[in-house]
Amino acid sequence: MTTTPTLEERVRRLEDEAEIRRLVASYGPLVDRGDADGTAALWADDGRYVVDGGAFEARAGVAAMVLSDQHQRLVRNGCAHFLGPLRIDVNGDHARVVCYSLLLERNGDEHVVRRASANRWELRRTDEGWQVAVRTNRRLDGDPAAHALLVTAEAPS
Amino acid sequence: MTTTPTLEERVRRLEDEAEIRRLVASYGPLVDRGDADGTAALWADDGRYVVDGGAFEARAGVAAMVLSDQHQRLVRNGCAHFLGPLRIDVNGDHARVVCYSLLLERNGDEHVVRRASANRWELRRTDEGWQVAVRTNRRLDGDPAAHALLVTAEAPS
Amino acid sequence: MTTTPTLEERVRRLEDEAEIRRLVASYGPLVDRGDADGTAALWADDGRYVVDGGAFEARAGVAAMVLSDQHQRLVRNGCAHFLGPLRIDVNGDHARVVCYSLLLERNGDEHVVRRASANRWELRRTDEGWQVAVRTNRRLDGDPAAHALLVTAEAPS
Repeated sequence: MTTTPTLEERVRRLEDEAEIRRLVASYGPLVDRGDADGTAALWADDGRYVVDGGAFEARAGVAAMVLSDQHQRLVRNGCAHFLGPLRIDVNGDHARVVCYSLLLERNGDEHVVRRASANRWELRRTDEGWQVAVRTNRRLDGDPAAHALLVTAEAPS
Repeated sequence: MTTTPTLEERVRRLEDEAEIRRLVASYGPLVDRGDADGTAALWADDGRYVVDGGAFEARAGVAAMVLSDQHQRLVRNGCAHFLGPLRIDVNGDHARVVCYSLLLERNGDEHVVRRASANRWELRRTDEGWQVAVRTNRRLDGDPAAHALLVTAEAPS
Repeated sequence: MTTTPTLEERVRRLEDEAEIRRLVASYGPLVDRGDADGTAALWADDGRYVVDGGAFEARAGVAAMVLSDQHQRLVRNGCAHFLGPLRIDVNGDHARVVCYSLLLERNGDEHVVRRASANRWELRRTDEGWQVAVRTNRRLDGDPAAHALLVTAEAPS
């Protein structure tokens, strides 16, 4: 049975979306200035970041990614992890975001798009606010595994 | 005469913007995984998608675009229809969105921007939620017809 | 002492974010169609736009930037000032937005990214709505001055 939400519940839903938007919009600035602890703090303690070929496990894994030579070289050369646009679906204490990410790297006087990916974020509400349970990122190279992330249905409860 | 909106009306306006944001953010994921019916369902039955050199008419026309050889080749090669940022103006049961769209296509190990366009979406509220009445997309190549889409005034009622 | 915000105050906060989002999303459309007065009107009378190597001062300075030969050549050739995603932090009558900007310019049949930058906008509430007090834009080329703009803390009051 669905009950009509109260005005307060409707406002809460909008605040949830705003908080989730702020979280996802913080990812790029954090990794692009090389802030390992700040990036890791977006994830839950037991969160995961799944990428092509593997996964970064828990906050320690996410922080290690940011501190890696590969990432630090990008930061020193000039990069932007540019995300957009967010499809957000909140369902109680869970939420899902579907979006794209572009990795732009400086190449002389221009920037080139090293990678365009599909992303799905599974988030959950905690006492400290919304946190990332699982983010999955797959390069858009025709692989159906990337297409499978581009979900537009309602979020599971 | 303008009357002061009630709190409920103000919340409804914010919900409208959130729903419209979700609709537009669904376009890329739907076309980039090649979902013809899902893409078409964003449009009203009698909606139009106007592009340089022609228009896709009604849901059948939009679905045919997604199923075309040209589009399916993009999907198999790896592409992202990356939209952003949305200027949304709601006026009663009508709304207008102005934004950009980038078409990124994989080229070996990188992605290139095949096209950067100006977009204007005219939306209307229906019993099934917000739907696209007309979307117009013009390549940004200096043509004043593209500039004319970049409207920043209030939406007509 | 922090007091619990009323429902009206919570709605007002969400409206502030929506208005700020609309303001920032209007920048690209205004400059890319070459609208000098419209662009300048986003700034406060005494606002500033700080870029690498200098600053455009007050509305007159912003308008002059749009009218410059360099900018008008971009508009005639086809360009997109593509911003995203916005981290918005409102604190009373002040707000801060952190985001990226890409400058895409047409190059034959494609568009290239001439510049990817970090951006911080300091906004203030006026009787005419939110206006830009200072926008700072720094090219992402490894310079710590660009990284310093990518702030993810709460906005100062």
